[in-house]
Amino acid sequence: MPRRSVAHLVCLGNQVAHGSLVHTKSRNFSSKPKYGFKPGKVAVVTKTTRYEFEQQRYRYAGLSEEDLKQLLAMKGSSYSGLLERHNIHTNNVDHIVKSLQKEGIDVQVVKRGEYDAEVVQWADAIISAGGDGTMLLVASKVLSKDKPIVGVNTDPERSEGHLCLPVKYTRRFPEALGKLSCGEFRWQWRQRIRLHLEGTGINPTPVDLHEQQLSLEQHSQAHRITTMDNKQKMGILNESFSKASLLPIRSLNEIFIGESLSSRASYYEISVDDGPWEKQKSSGLSICTGTGSKAWSYNINKLAEQAVNEILKIGKYETGLDIPLNPQFIEKVTDKYNESLVFSPEDRRLFFSVREPIVNRVFSSSRQRGFASKSVAIPPSHKCERVKRVCVRSRCWDACMVVDGGTSFEFNDGAIATISMSEEDQLRTVLLDN
Amino acid sequence: MPRRSVAHLVCLGNQVAHGSLVHTKSRNFSSKPKYGFKPGKVAVVTKTTRYEFEQQRYRYAGLSEEDLKQLLAMKGSSYSGLLERHNIHTNNVDHIVKSLQKEGIDVQVVKRGEYDAEVVQWADAIISAGGDGTMLLVASKVLSKDKPIVGVNTDPERSEGHLCLPVKYTRRFPEALGKLSCGEFRWQWRQRIRLHLEGTGINPTPVDLHEQQLSLEQHSQAHRITTMDNKQKMGILNESFSKASLLPIRSLNEIFIGESLSSRASYYEISVDDGPWEKQKSSGLSICTGTGSKAWSYNINKLAEQAVNEILKIGKYETGLDIPLNPQFIEKVTDKYNESLVFSPEDRRLFFSVREPIVNRVFSSSRQRGFASKSVAIPPSHKCERVKRVCVRSRCWDACMVVDGGTSFEFNDGAIATISMSEEDQLRTVLLDN
Repeated sequence: MPRRSVAHLVCLGNQVAHGSLVHTKSRNFSSKPKYGFKPGKVAVVTKTTRYEFEQQRYRYAGLSEEDLKQLLAMKGSSYSGLLERHNIHTNNVDHIVKSLQKEGIDVQVVKRGEYDAEVVQWADAIISAGGDGTMLLVASKVLSKDKPIVGVNTDPERSEGHLCLPVKYTRRFPEALGKLSCGEFRWQWRQRIRLHLEGTGINPTPVDLHEQQLSLEQHSQAHRITTMDNKQKMGILNESFSKASLLPIRSLNEIFIGESLSSRASYYEISVDDGPWEKQKSSGLSICTGTGSKAWSYNINKLAEQAVNEILKIGKYETGLDIPLNPQFIEKVTDKYNESLVFSPEDRRLFFSVREPIVNRVFSSSRQRGFASKSVAIPPSHKCERVKRVCVRSRCWDACMVVDGGTSFEFNDGAIATISMSEEDQLRTVLLDN
Repeated sequence: MPRRSVAHLVCLGNQVAHGSLVHTKSRNFSSKPKYGFKPGKVAVVTKTTRYEFEQQRYRYAGLSEEDLKQLLAMKGSSYSGLLERHNIHTNNVDHIVKSLQKEGIDVQVVKRGEYDAEVVQWADAIISAGGDGTMLLVASKVLSKDKPIVGVNTDPERSEGHLCLPVKYTRRFPEALGKLSCGEFRWQWRQRIRLHLEGTGINPTPVDLHEQQLSLEQHSQAHRITTMDNKQKMGILNESFSKASLLPIRSLNEIFIGESLSSRASYYEISVDDGPWEKQKSSGLSICTGTGSKAWSYNINKLAEQAVNEILKIGKYETGLDIPLNPQFIEKVTDKYNESLVFSPEDRRLFFSVREPIVNRVFSSSRQRGFASKSVAIPPSHKCERVKRVCVRSRCWDACMVVDGGTSFEFNDGAIATISMSEEDQLRTVLLDN
């Protein structure tokens, strides 16, 4: 696509930096840019809609469009409903692309499945056109803290999109571009997680879960392609990573470690801040960033009013104190408790949560959750930096380490993961007023 | 094996009923039998030890015993340690079998994988020789409430075995037999869950997860064998179960419903006690019995002292009341709260828990957990009985319905499960003094 250089936007006050990113000083707080931001090349990464997914799935099974309609109706889903959501997404993507092109920006539209390091390399900035899932996948492949990522929610009525721009910009995208161009926004550098893997039971080739699109079977097969072929079968003894290798992916939300099968308990050992190894049995383990503290980690740890009510009722009974138990008070305590689970995206700490820990006389868990808060020195090979970190040794049968719910690595018995945070892994995102 | 009829046991007080089960009146409470219990034919179902599992796995990959030793050492596991646990199990099984034979009982030893309806039919009583996992699998295939099931923990130092006899009887099994024979025990009828499936997205053929032994890949393949072959591909439209069919399995602990892949969120609709359908998004759903209220469900719902401490601290701050926050008090409140999550194995209620509910403006969850407590009439086809029930409609991509963590059924978009309890599904178990 030829690059055009017409700037249609008129800015008041701030200067516009054409064609390339203006490097404002990276800080750990959101910062107002000195100049506006106007990238020359933008990659727009689009999600796969459920309509596309169902279509692919049943076409593969040899079904016609008419069969698909019938089948969806039988499952209680509406074909026309899915098509409507699909069209809304497609129209929003078109709107984004046209708005960018109108500003003379060179645009490359790539489907989620086609998005790779080459696209990242090419683009000055990347727009994720979908929901939070797409945004997470897009971010995971961006290793530089200088390449901005912008999320646009293409189905704002139906999905949340915490990581995306405010929903009003979906249909008024030129307004967002205008603000970017004029510097009427803030950069937010979100802290991320990096992963080192060592030991046995590892396959460092990632498998994209693609949210809705990969079945358990495909997931397993993808894991096995490189691990269970004949070459591998006889070579197991050599498949050991004696040196911890840094994976080419960063996590914006969380790392999940555990058995792939949701109904199976996970066995592993954990060491926080280089403390002693502790054996654990649980429904896996989550290690999140400040950004992720609002996501899965929040759902793992948040309490329902029901539970808070019961705790306070027991407290009242045991103390004889006049603790109020009215709905307003319960709601207030619950909200305050749940709010305390969230921390800033710029926070450099890791937060770990043991899911549904199994405590018995064989396994014990000293802390169900907490911050990795003590700085420890990491080996000289990865620059001698003091970081917070959590180490996990797998004792699992058929486990995975999943980055942001979207990318999965095999993580079986003998594998060791070092989960840490480094300043150089920040993700450059945009904050716009709602 | 020939049946011998020598009774070596001498009982004081109670009469011994030889060769067959004495039907004492079924009640919903544990009851002291009028006569002793001495079965003529006993099936002993044995677990697969981790040693056997590793051996099978690596033999399959063409490795020698020496390679296995080396590989286990690399993973930080000890070959001799696994072999030791294996031998302890094997010796305990031998002890059980010999003790039974000495009493003239006809014994059939079957491996976990070989255990089927025929074995159940043959036996007067079934002994599970393993841990709770084996006990659950053994019980799941026993549909009659007249066939007693006894669990013997064959690795009492290393596993809990809540459902097994007190651990002292593992190595003193003749003592247990003596008590059974003399009536020095109580029957306990544990309530269980039955399952009806209807709609699309179903495969009523169960897949045994065999705890440690089936990989995610095998699990998926097993699910697909009957659902994704060519015949099926074109026949999807016919694969609908218009009438709810009762599955030939009973659940002693819990039913888990959700995406097979542990890192994926599950979409479904739920109706409790025939109430309105509610859309939910969560890490799946658990529906448990009283027996299961001490198992996974307990781990889903229990609170750590850490959380209780924080709730009371907020309560103290908000009220200004002098709520104590010392460790003893926190422990007391936590214990009381957690104890309230457990209910009797004979209780005829179902308890559901939504795991890590995702609450946002699209999905809401009115109750995170609760009892199905209202009796509703079930269709005449399954006898017109009033039961408590939970109905779940799958909106999942690649989901399963897992019975007691051991048996999995496909449960995809369009499938509807009715989870209920019936008096006729009680499991006859033995209570012995510790």
